[in-house]
Amino acid sequence: MVKGTALYGDPEDPDAFEEYYANTHVPLVKQIPNLQRFEPARVVATPDGSELPYYRIAELYFEDMEQLQAGFSSDEGQAVAADFPNFATGGVTLFFSEIEA
Amino acid sequence: MVKGTALYGDPEDPDAFEEYYANTHVPLVKQIPNLQRFEPARVVATPDGSELPYYRIAELYFEDMEQLQAGFSSDEGQAVAADFPNFATGGVTLFFSEIEA
Repeated sequence: MVKGTALYGDPEDPDAFEEYYANTHVPLVKQIPNLQRFEPARVVATPDGSELPYYRIAELYFEDMEQLQAGFSSDEGQAVAADFPNFATGGVTLFFSEIEA
Repeated sequence: MVKGTALYGDPEDPDAFEEYYANTHVPLVKQIPNLQRFEPARVVATPDGSELPYYRIAELYFEDMEQLQAGFSSDEGQAVAADFPNFATGGVTLFFSEIEA
């Protein structure tokens, strides 16, 4: 399995972010071809009580890197990428990784 | 479900990191009480071909935040925390999050 990870920075307006994310962005994500599983999560704490490094983490699981690349290259995948500027006011860090477990 | 996420920066010596990680650190992680699932992954690409923001991502899944806190507070959890300086020469970013899926 492989995954795409999105790490969101603190948004300017968390309520607006949450509404847009749940009602617009996540439905777009779920349309990405080949997507096996979507795991959105809200960052809530750090081990030492320091400032949260990110606001949210979202992970998109695919069977292999070929399926992931095809998914993100599709019209639906491009729509997700094009949607970030509409709500990710705290920035977003994106990367792909190969799971070893 | 909740998870603890570790994001590793580029190590000074990747071969030494990999050897220590596989043979010493991961066995310590797997001893953490209440741990439901461990998902180590190697970061391999970014969507736009830019520099990789992290070297590795590792996620530790627990039933709920109480179980997670108990796991990390245990002797085995503290041993994992104390082990980072032994190999994470590129730094490590740690946070806990609540999964919504």
